[in-house]
Amino acid sequence: MSLLVVGSVAFDAIETPYGKVPRVLGGAATYFSLAASFFTQVRVVGVVGEDFTAKEEQVMLARGIDTSGIVREKGKSFFWAGEYGENVNEAKTLDTQLGVFATFNPQVPKNFRDSEYVFLANIDPSLQVNVRKQINGARFVAGDTMNYWINGTPQQLAEMLKLVDALLINDSEAKMLAKDASLPRAAQKVLKMGPKALVIKHGEYGATVFFQDGAFGIGRHPFRAPTLPIETVVDPTGAGDSFAGGFMGYIASQGELTRDVFKRAMFYGGVMGSFAVEAFGTERLQTLTREEIDDRYKIFRELTHIE
Amino acid sequence: MSLLVVGSVAFDAIETPYGKVPRVLGGAATYFSLAASFFTQVRVVGVVGEDFTAKEEQVMLARGIDTSGIVREKGKSFFWAGEYGENVNEAKTLDTQLGVFATFNPQVPKNFRDSEYVFLANIDPSLQVNVRKQINGARFVAGDTMNYWINGTPQQLAEMLKLVDALLINDSEAKMLAKDASLPRAAQKVLKMGPKALVIKHGEYGATVFFQDGAFGIGRHPFRAPTLPIETVVDPTGAGDSFAGGFMGYIASQGELTRDVFKRAMFYGGVMGSFAVEAFGTERLQTLTREEIDDRYKIFRELTHIE
Repeated sequence: MSLLVVGSVAFDAIETPYGKVPRVLGGAATYFSLAASFFTQVRVVGVVGEDFTAKEEQVMLARGIDTSGIVREKGKSFFWAGEYGENVNEAKTLDTQLGVFATFNPQVPKNFRDSEYVFLANIDPSLQVNVRKQINGARFVAGDTMNYWINGTPQQLAEMLKLVDALLINDSEAKMLAKDASLPRAAQKVLKMGPKALVIKHGEYGATVFFQDGAFGIGRHPFRAPTLPIETVVDPTGAGDSFAGGFMGYIASQGELTRDVFKRAMFYGGVMGSFAVEAFGTERLQTLTREEIDDRYKIFRELTHIE
Repeated sequence: MSLLVVGSVAFDAIETPYGKVPRVLGGAATYFSLAASFFTQVRVVGVVGEDFTAKEEQVMLARGIDTSGIVREKGKSFFWAGEYGENVNEAKTLDTQLGVFATFNPQVPKNFRDSEYVFLANIDPSLQVNVRKQINGARFVAGDTMNYWINGTPQQLAEMLKLVDALLINDSEAKMLAKDASLPRAAQKVLKMGPKALVIKHGEYGATVFFQDGAFGIGRHPFRAPTLPIETVVDPTGAGDSFAGGFMGYIASQGELTRDVFKRAMFYGGVMGSFAVEAFGTERLQTLTREEIDDRYKIFRELTHIE
């Protein structure tokens, strides 16, 4: 089934304890679409500058991603420079240059408006709302957000939360959004804001999904998927977006939203996140095979499986 | 099978966002033995002062725990006062009075020396070593430690690590012990120090066990058990010791150490930890039933179960 992602396509400069790269392809929509491309047909809506060349586009095209919704504008692509220390869960932003992203007002091309599955990557929630309203027939829409919008544009975010089926955020974002330090209690409060499912990503500890009572007809008990303990996290950038790509890609590939599909989607999300961090930028996602993905899925399953 | 625990029996003053208790029964051996008592026969070796009365002893006796190894001395029992803020994973110690514990030199009574399963709760590692050497026929010995000993008595701790089959510590202790910020890498380093199995407790995210290659004949793949997302953690004190009690109690009850036994033990550990935090001190463990334990075990299993 068709899966649409709207978000940033960018360049990153990254420094971690394992090395330094001055400029690699990045951005939420890039990680997401590469990860999801192993499961389903992916369409991207984004904006890039003149520095985004055929070489970068080829990274997506090689994975069968439909890039026709990426608009090219005069100027530079979004650029982010960040650094990770020993704590791989926290990036220190060194530089952000919005470039053409500053005036990004995503329009969904006509031929993308029949998308059944949609991921609104982390951008201004008012833009997420605009996009959401352009795709009224979507079966399942998920979104991401961040502290910047939670604090800065709470009203716009509140509107966005009413328009998504699932929200994918991390622990600290969930606690901040709910203004509650207890994660399970924060989860219940966020679910009352709109999303039927709340996927909370715990970094190296995996992710938990909480449901509204009766959501999707699959009950309300939470479900937790682990991540593989990765010895060397070379570059944590994009782990969350790769999780979202695996999660949404798998759901889109299944056509129906059962509890088992949701569970397996959580595992595939963890699998894709775990691959993403093994190399700088999107490098590992570019060389990955479906067989490697399914092998790791089995390892993840064994990691928590009990008769 | 007989399970012996050596450790502190104490009184605690605890303050959390949910209330304040000036003096409740506590101590690692207390939490451990209460949790383990739902699975197997438990024997306790410890020391208490004159303030430990028949009322406190009755808490253990009511659960069928053999308290004949608890020595009474002149003076006061170990006393700890601590406070938890919003972050339930970190206690702030307000006061510690060692009392009779200061000169604790545990001797295992003759009738306890046939214990097949042993837990060396968090005490001076040189005392742990002395105890370990008194029970040469033990089938499975696990131990705990803390930052204080990791930094303060590394040589004694190194000796202890060579004498235990399993070590149960938390994330920050594992990283400190291995001097490595990567958890899976730290785990491999700790395994090289002696223990065949390393159980790392992740607080609200559950726990992961790492094995030496071929340990116990059950392979080397790690296994992770979740904890239930608890909305209101009333008092986190004793969660780790209750985990250890459920873990060791279940293993002792099974007689053989298969991979499945180990997995279920990890789940039961999480279950007991999750109950312990629902009320102040050992209150919840005192009123618990085996039926409640097995019901929650099923919920935990469902939380991560995937076909």
